[in-house]
Amino acid sequence: MFEVNRRSALKIAAFAVAASSVAPALAADAEVLPSWVDGEAKSRIVDFVAATTTEGGADFVEPADRVAVFDNDGTLWGEQPMYVQLAFVLDRVKQLAPQHPEWQTKEPFKSVLSGDMAGVAASGQKGLVELLAATHAGMSTEEFEKIVSDWTASARHPVSGKPYTAHIFQPMVELIDYLKAKEFKVFIVSGGGVEFMRPWTERVYGIPPENVVGSSIKTKYEPRNGVPAILRLPEIDFIDDGPGKPVGIHKFIGRRPIAAFGNSDGDFEMLEWTTSGPGRRFGLIVHHDDAERENAYDRDSHFGRLARGLDEAPARGWTIVSMKDDWKVIYPK
Amino acid sequence: MFEVNRRSALKIAAFAVAASSVAPALAADAEVLPSWVDGEAKSRIVDFVAATTTEGGADFVEPADRVAVFDNDGTLWGEQPMYVQLAFVLDRVKQLAPQHPEWQTKEPFKSVLSGDMAGVAASGQKGLVELLAATHAGMSTEEFEKIVSDWTASARHPVSGKPYTAHIFQPMVELIDYLKAKEFKVFIVSGGGVEFMRPWTERVYGIPPENVVGSSIKTKYEPRNGVPAILRLPEIDFIDDGPGKPVGIHKFIGRRPIAAFGNSDGDFEMLEWTTSGPGRRFGLIVHHDDAERENAYDRDSHFGRLARGLDEAPARGWTIVSMKDDWKVIYPK
Repeated sequence: MFEVNRRSALKIAAFAVAASSVAPALAADAEVLPSWVDGEAKSRIVDFVAATTTEGGADFVEPADRVAVFDNDGTLWGEQPMYVQLAFVLDRVKQLAPQHPEWQTKEPFKSVLSGDMAGVAASGQKGLVELLAATHAGMSTEEFEKIVSDWTASARHPVSGKPYTAHIFQPMVELIDYLKAKEFKVFIVSGGGVEFMRPWTERVYGIPPENVVGSSIKTKYEPRNGVPAILRLPEIDFIDDGPGKPVGIHKFIGRRPIAAFGNSDGDFEMLEWTTSGPGRRFGLIVHHDDAERENAYDRDSHFGRLARGLDEAPARGWTIVSMKDDWKVIYPK
Repeated sequence: MFEVNRRSALKIAAFAVAASSVAPALAADAEVLPSWVDGEAKSRIVDFVAATTTEGGADFVEPADRVAVFDNDGTLWGEQPMYVQLAFVLDRVKQLAPQHPEWQTKEPFKSVLSGDMAGVAASGQKGLVELLAATHAGMSTEEFEKIVSDWTASARHPVSGKPYTAHIFQPMVELIDYLKAKEFKVFIVSGGGVEFMRPWTERVYGIPPENVVGSSIKTKYEPRNGVPAILRLPEIDFIDDGPGKPVGIHKFIGRRPIAAFGNSDGDFEMLEWTTSGPGRRFGLIVHHDDAERENAYDRDSHFGRLARGLDEAPARGWTIVSMKDDWKVIYPK
């Protein structure tokens, strides 16, 4: 069902572009962001886009400089009851366990296999790196891409029973399409692994692999049996989270965005870096306050903790989106 | 003069796109790559592009997957008598010397200031890192961008007396425009510093900063006097050369290119990785064999050494371009 919906969104975007090239004034904003309630959040977005894309206006920005960055976990899709990539790690450990009998008695694998999440957490940073090494390294990049694609197609969310890619936020997908139709260059800038996202972001969000920035492990170019390959090494290369996000933006994109969209304090520096530049800027935080349709969490959450952002957003001029009040729907139909 | 020329090229490209959308068959290839001699090299390029962009053909490639990568030094612009970035380093040391009286007696700075290039070379890798740290680190990314832009505008090539950006290769700029008009995504993948290229690649080649991959030093997000900034640290982050090029392509672009263009053995692995993928692929090496109009060098050059590529290109199906025989002109008019 989502696929149909996605194509429809693309058609609307394509139509908007075609229409605006013929008669810009007719591309009415009543049709944009249909899943957003006509309130302050939507009107701030539309005002920002109008201001930065209207030629001759004081805040006009050339298309080349219209860079918008989106966090992924909790901003474009759900991150509860745990980050999707963590669910992938746990599943992979279970799948690989028969080849590793020693894991039955060795932490953090033992806790994973017995479903003891407190035990996994107790293994700390060291345990996490061991889990990453066991599940994300030791194969070629193309083999890993296939592993991720296969898992994404087969894995199901523990609560809804749907594929994780069904848990994307329809209003945010519309926002991506809207910005692209207005000649923004849209990037994902996520704390998640870049190679965990790239296999599906184009199909699901319309964001191609080259526009995905994320955390990464090191790789090495090395022919295997005479066939050129890039091997994944058990060593962290880059952590694209918190103060790492502006660094990742600079490293991969090479210019400061004019709009940033996040949901947790891991996005704080990305929003700060984006909105402290000269000219008109836009910062937005998705607030998970909808226990009925999605989840309600902020200051005390293990995943996607949001405290400083909530406190400082008003003074910084950032828009806080209430999922409960600002979104007509949460997921694609 | 170059600016006018660049705009003309863009107009031609835009016209080609418009024309092809109305009547594809009329977008005659006689008009493409006008600075290329009608010979084997040009015809191989045109055949490859036709094969991969003709819908319904056996070798058709979707636009999303049409990734083309270009080396920069020696492929898109000159690299003699030394890499342009090295000229920048030497100039910066001279500019900064009054603030560093100790450099008068300390290597490798002493050799740079006395013009003793053999002495600079004798300082080896350690000396080079010291020179990089002194000239490329210790400032914000925005300050460095201004330093590069100012230098690029004022520096002159020691032989021609022209700006370095006048030493770009007109046939290669036409090739970039041709590929872009055919919906290729064109990236630079260079051993040079990414932040040394990004300030001018869009203006000079039409390649935006986010499509430039290169070597880099580490950076750190850190407000200075309360103003958010990204600081450049005196530490190598990534070397985008040789086997580092496939790694850089994977890291920054996230998919394997279908066409690669280089000129030295530092591009070998990039060409190998690109052309060993499935489906129709294209590899091309620019051979500097034109002592009269540019330079003639290959196996014994300090900059842009080319030996293995020359030896293996025929068996690998890579096209070798003779600057002397295949290019009508070298530089933009």
